[in-house]
Amino acid sequence: MMKPEIKAFVFDAYGTLFDVHSVMEKCNEYFPEKGEKISLSWRKKQIEYFFIRQLTGNYKPFHIITRDALTYAVKEQGESLSKQQEDSLMESYNLLTPYDEVTSVLEQLEGKKRVVFSNGSHQMLDPLIEQASLASLFSDVLSVDETKQYKPTPASYNIVLNKLNVRREEVLFMSSNGWDISGAKSFGFNTAWINRNGLPVEELDAAPDKIYHDLRGILEWLE
Amino acid sequence: MMKPEIKAFVFDAYGTLFDVHSVMEKCNEYFPEKGEKISLSWRKKQIEYFFIRQLTGNYKPFHIITRDALTYAVKEQGESLSKQQEDSLMESYNLLTPYDEVTSVLEQLEGKKRVVFSNGSHQMLDPLIEQASLASLFSDVLSVDETKQYKPTPASYNIVLNKLNVRREEVLFMSSNGWDISGAKSFGFNTAWINRNGLPVEELDAAPDKIYHDLRGILEWLE
Repeated sequence: MMKPEIKAFVFDAYGTLFDVHSVMEKCNEYFPEKGEKISLSWRKKQIEYFFIRQLTGNYKPFHIITRDALTYAVKEQGESLSKQQEDSLMESYNLLTPYDEVTSVLEQLEGKKRVVFSNGSHQMLDPLIEQASLASLFSDVLSVDETKQYKPTPASYNIVLNKLNVRREEVLFMSSNGWDISGAKSFGFNTAWINRNGLPVEELDAAPDKIYHDLRGILEWLE
Repeated sequence: MMKPEIKAFVFDAYGTLFDVHSVMEKCNEYFPEKGEKISLSWRKKQIEYFFIRQLTGNYKPFHIITRDALTYAVKEQGESLSKQQEDSLMESYNLLTPYDEVTSVLEQLEGKKRVVFSNGSHQMLDPLIEQASLASLFSDVLSVDETKQYKPTPASYNIVLNKLNVRREEVLFMSSNGWDISGAKSFGFNTAWINRNGLPVEELDAAPDKIYHDLRGILEWLE
């Protein structure tokens, strides 16, 4: 494939720039030996809940869904949380660790539009990016909350075109989430799946244009 | 709550009437010791794929999604299937076992509309119901395939109203799937969650009207 000229490098946030399971330590603190289970279930339920809320027409912002998903994940393990513990775990979601290569890759993309586009609400995204010292490396931070249409709907990806004034084929969209790549590819973006866990390609007839183990791979799109 | 008079008893199929994990034995035959993992992942991916296809506007019928989900589940375990093995596993999905109480509960509902309403396509649903000797116990078998709108979208539940000529409040909808109950409740049906695995209620602001361990509980709606 001839690589088209990319005008906007658009990054998903959770799982792509930030390790959602860096909350596991805090989970383990409250629930020794169940931290991993709760952390994995928390993320799984969070995704499931924004799918279901989108499908049933009951949109709620990401920070509420994230709290609801935590409540479920803890109950599922037969445990409970005090309000203070719940607040503390939610706070830890604003302190997620970026993956090792993130800062360096963003620096090498200087001069290009570098954009975050996430299902997260600004209430969570903005402090997260700030605490990781990444704010100055992004030209835009876009949230689906602006139109209340979650990824992977076409209406959500359209936010990117409207806000950045670019065409679909000028966008390289990067995500570690197979469902996000499938939606973005189906919408018409160039897509790079950051397959950090060595998973199979989703069987959804919308395979990514490129697959990389981490974000460093995308630098070949600069050439 | 005063129970309204129910004119149509509407059952989800997979997980509610039929045990989707009765394919585990066949999975174990091909992949000793990995049968449970593959069976669980197969079902998980099947649900995820119809959510994603609905969200991205790429509807495909259930039997194709079910095959795609199987392909993924097997690859995820680092395994592969011959065409013949794949066909055989797909065939076993048409031979799922109904739960123990199903026939007896349906018999006790005689005289009422007894309806299957499933994301399954007729190509899979009809032989499944036939082989379990349940065909004569249902007045209707409805599939989302008629409008190509998967549950839990409102458009899908609307099929029930159109086909049965009943009002929302005259329907009792039963499902073991929390996402399905959430969608049906949000649409305006009376809902009974058949919570076979003792899971917590989903944190989706659409709690079921009633929760039963198996389908026998619904007989109280006859009173």
